[in-house]
Amino acid sequence: MLKKGWLWGLGSGLLLLWLSAGLRPVQGGRVLVMPVEGSHWLSMKVLATELARRGHDVLVLVPEKNILIQSSELFRTETFPVKISKEQLSKSLKGFQQGVFTRSPALMDVFVQLERLLNFTGSQVEGCESLLYNEPLMRKLKEQNFELMLTDPFLPCGPIIATALGVPAVYFLRGMPCGIDLLASQCPSPPSYVPRFHSGTSDKMNFVERIRNFFMSGFELVLCKVMYASFDELAARYLKKDVTYKEIIGRGALWLHRYDFTFEYPRPIMPNMVFIGGINCQKSAEISAEVEEFVNGSGEHGIVVFSLGSLVSSMPKEKADIFFKAFSMIPQRVLWRYTGEIPDNVPENVKLMKWLPQNDLLGHPKARAFITHGGTHGIYEGICRGVPMVMLPLFGDQADNVHRVATRGVGVILSIHDITVETLLDALNSVINNSSYKQKMQKLSAIHNDRPIQPLDLAVFWTEFVMRHKGADHLRPAAHELNWLQYHSLDVIGFMLLIVLIVTLAMLKCCSLCWRRCCRKTQKRKED
Amino acid sequence: MLKKGWLWGLGSGLLLLWLSAGLRPVQGGRVLVMPVEGSHWLSMKVLATELARRGHDVLVLVPEKNILIQSSELFRTETFPVKISKEQLSKSLKGFQQGVFTRSPALMDVFVQLERLLNFTGSQVEGCESLLYNEPLMRKLKEQNFELMLTDPFLPCGPIIATALGVPAVYFLRGMPCGIDLLASQCPSPPSYVPRFHSGTSDKMNFVERIRNFFMSGFELVLCKVMYASFDELAARYLKKDVTYKEIIGRGALWLHRYDFTFEYPRPIMPNMVFIGGINCQKSAEISAEVEEFVNGSGEHGIVVFSLGSLVSSMPKEKADIFFKAFSMIPQRVLWRYTGEIPDNVPENVKLMKWLPQNDLLGHPKARAFITHGGTHGIYEGICRGVPMVMLPLFGDQADNVHRVATRGVGVILSIHDITVETLLDALNSVINNSSYKQKMQKLSAIHNDRPIQPLDLAVFWTEFVMRHKGADHLRPAAHELNWLQYHSLDVIGFMLLIVLIVTLAMLKCCSLCWRRCCRKTQKRKED
Repeated sequence: MLKKGWLWGLGSGLLLLWLSAGLRPVQGGRVLVMPVEGSHWLSMKVLATELARRGHDVLVLVPEKNILIQSSELFRTETFPVKISKEQLSKSLKGFQQGVFTRSPALMDVFVQLERLLNFTGSQVEGCESLLYNEPLMRKLKEQNFELMLTDPFLPCGPIIATALGVPAVYFLRGMPCGIDLLASQCPSPPSYVPRFHSGTSDKMNFVERIRNFFMSGFELVLCKVMYASFDELAARYLKKDVTYKEIIGRGALWLHRYDFTFEYPRPIMPNMVFIGGINCQKSAEISAEVEEFVNGSGEHGIVVFSLGSLVSSMPKEKADIFFKAFSMIPQRVLWRYTGEIPDNVPENVKLMKWLPQNDLLGHPKARAFITHGGTHGIYEGICRGVPMVMLPLFGDQADNVHRVATRGVGVILSIHDITVETLLDALNSVINNSSYKQKMQKLSAIHNDRPIQPLDLAVFWTEFVMRHKGADHLRPAAHELNWLQYHSLDVIGFMLLIVLIVTLAMLKCCSLCWRRCCRKTQKRKED
Repeated sequence: MLKKGWLWGLGSGLLLLWLSAGLRPVQGGRVLVMPVEGSHWLSMKVLATELARRGHDVLVLVPEKNILIQSSELFRTETFPVKISKEQLSKSLKGFQQGVFTRSPALMDVFVQLERLLNFTGSQVEGCESLLYNEPLMRKLKEQNFELMLTDPFLPCGPIIATALGVPAVYFLRGMPCGIDLLASQCPSPPSYVPRFHSGTSDKMNFVERIRNFFMSGFELVLCKVMYASFDELAARYLKKDVTYKEIIGRGALWLHRYDFTFEYPRPIMPNMVFIGGINCQKSAEISAEVEEFVNGSGEHGIVVFSLGSLVSSMPKEKADIFFKAFSMIPQRVLWRYTGEIPDNVPENVKLMKWLPQNDLLGHPKARAFITHGGTHGIYEGICRGVPMVMLPLFGDQADNVHRVATRGVGVILSIHDITVETLLDALNSVINNSSYKQKMQKLSAIHNDRPIQPLDLAVFWTEFVMRHKGADHLRPAAHELNWLQYHSLDVIGFMLLIVLIVTLAMLKCCSLCWRRCCRKTQKRKED
């Protein structure tokens, strides 16, 4: 008995030692990663690589025909065949790249954006189907007993596989069209101060803006039905359950949101949301001697960094000419990620590059301005490094992103369709020479960089937490058990109104009975 | 010009170095602390002491007649005179201590709790008034140019002083009666799954419970008006503004909430809320050799730790007898914080102490059970150390606290009024010998202790953050600019309904006009 007590004591002691050591012993967890193509992958790769570096066995699922998803020495990859051919993919990408420079009527813009999105997700859902119904591959995945699925719920493949394999899912995302991520995580989002996709409002709205935002929030509910119809169908068909995609993603253990509140407007959040905005700022590439020389040669005027993101590196010649002309008229040197047609008279202060070490160039003391399309990766690199921006939103969430940056007074928005040499010069002049932009940006940057733990460490911590505890059930709100009527207490209100109605009717009935009886008596008496 | 560029480069370089070093240079900030008496102070003291230890100049405001607030070598104190005499305070405390053992009719319980609370806050508001209208002292405070006010908004003094001095406030709290903290921080709190004070429900409610909780949430709104009337009056009178206490605390920079989601049910939160549950578990006191010997002598059976909190250390003799009798019948040794009447026949396995090193005893490998009143400090020490609990709620939020612990299967609730030797033995037997309690508690404890940063470090970080950035405006939701109607979009809905009404009426009018004209023509034709 004494021995038992001693053993118990030793066990408790070791447990406490383990607890006090910070509970880090999930070395060698098995992580399945289902990424989304394009820029989505760029920051998820940072986390996947770090998890692999810390000793986890990371397997990334890669479509046979891909754009940016590449293998790595650190993690394993599993390639799955897709129906789309290399030519089709290339053609679709080219069409997309040209499309962003085509103006659409102002009122129709939201529908054009939607169509582009549906085209993109449509082809990706097809790819997802090839994977899900690839039985040998799915069996192989099942056999590997993964402990965690890291995925971007922007596409249905990851969450559906996590459900099929019974593995807890950690989501890595910027947000989802029509706010389905907020709906799925039971996060309140009052339309009175939480701006909706493409509403063009900030968090401080006047009455007209609130009407517009309210209208957009209703429109989103309809949009959700249209947008996620193919996701719902695929999920229900594959899992052989009457289930919607929203319900599927609602089962995720944790949401790693790729933003913070230096960029996003403050609004209600949920305990299982973790904010890792700026996670991509930690990646670093060496600046070559040639580039360094070009940058240093800019003298006191410094440099302008120009990139339209990972998918758009060229533009129609007449557009490019505007940029070349404007750049020839500024004292700064310009580093431009550009793979399009090169004119003969490229100004001397412009260096065209197929690929830019963007984050490091922005971190260079000579960086004065950043011309960006307004993807969150670029925006966060600008905020991390404190460089004011000239923003040219092209598609997707970019119009909303740049609006957020502009309302903070750290950047200027231009339309790629209406851009002229003058407007571009004006914008560059403002962000470079009007000290208000630089000051506000430095303040924003200081706030963003002032955090108790780096975003990458935070993302790793929570991913490992979900592995250690096989989920994060203690952060899951009970709201998931309620339907819409119950959540808003409408059944309770209805019931109480019914009680009031019944009581009122009963009282009226009583009164009328009493009244009649009285009347009858009086009549009888009169008759008597 | 070149020199200027060089200087700029150096400046940027230093800034980046500063940023990368984690922005910790707020050494020597000036912090004013306005605590709340009783157990509230015990954990705030942990933070105040740590801030002082890290080099900040901390000044704690201490009422002349106090119970637990003491001076320290690390921080300065400023004593302010209060109207209440030492005798009155002692009498009121004694009355309170006896009151908690007096049974109140079940239905009236909430009102009794309320009365006690109003008595307590009433006397404290008086003390606050003495401080606010103590002009020399207020002038002295003003002259010290504090950079931050650390306070518990449970009482109005701190937030009002912060407003008067124009200093950003950081709140340190468990929660506030009638949920005014959630209202003030614009945090949604759906009554369908967020249980209200004294509703006796968990986050998973059936229809009847949801009706009760909905009713309580309405009742809270009325309660708020009553409870905070004296706070509102004092704030408006002192600040000479038409302002409510809710508005005052709504201006705070940051909320340090003394709980996490191993204890509280998951629900919507706001970005300026930081969760530091378990901050008090880090304090440690040495166990004396005598106590250590007593504990070790318990053998394989281990010990039971028993404390009813900082304010209640005695009980009526007939109650105490029940405990003594039950303890004499268990094989464990009991350490009891007890200052009441000691009977002749104290069982040998019971050690009565005026003060308990509770946290350290719970962390001892021999700890088997913890008998507690269910204050959050004790509960968190139990959770941190993984010791199942027998809970005897006495007043305030304790009934709600113990309900949370019980729904997690890590503790048993007993009523101090109905307790018998048998029920106490049953409860102790369950938590000690039914392995389910220990297993669930160990799981809960592991989750609670598994965090990327310790609660005390987190609290220090955010307090220093507010000093570094003179607030945390980027975390302040725009909802503060809206009134109730606007927040819920009721004005927008009303406006849209009005439009629909006008359009419908106009259409009806048109139709009726057309109809009349048609009819008239047909009639005319007939007449013709």
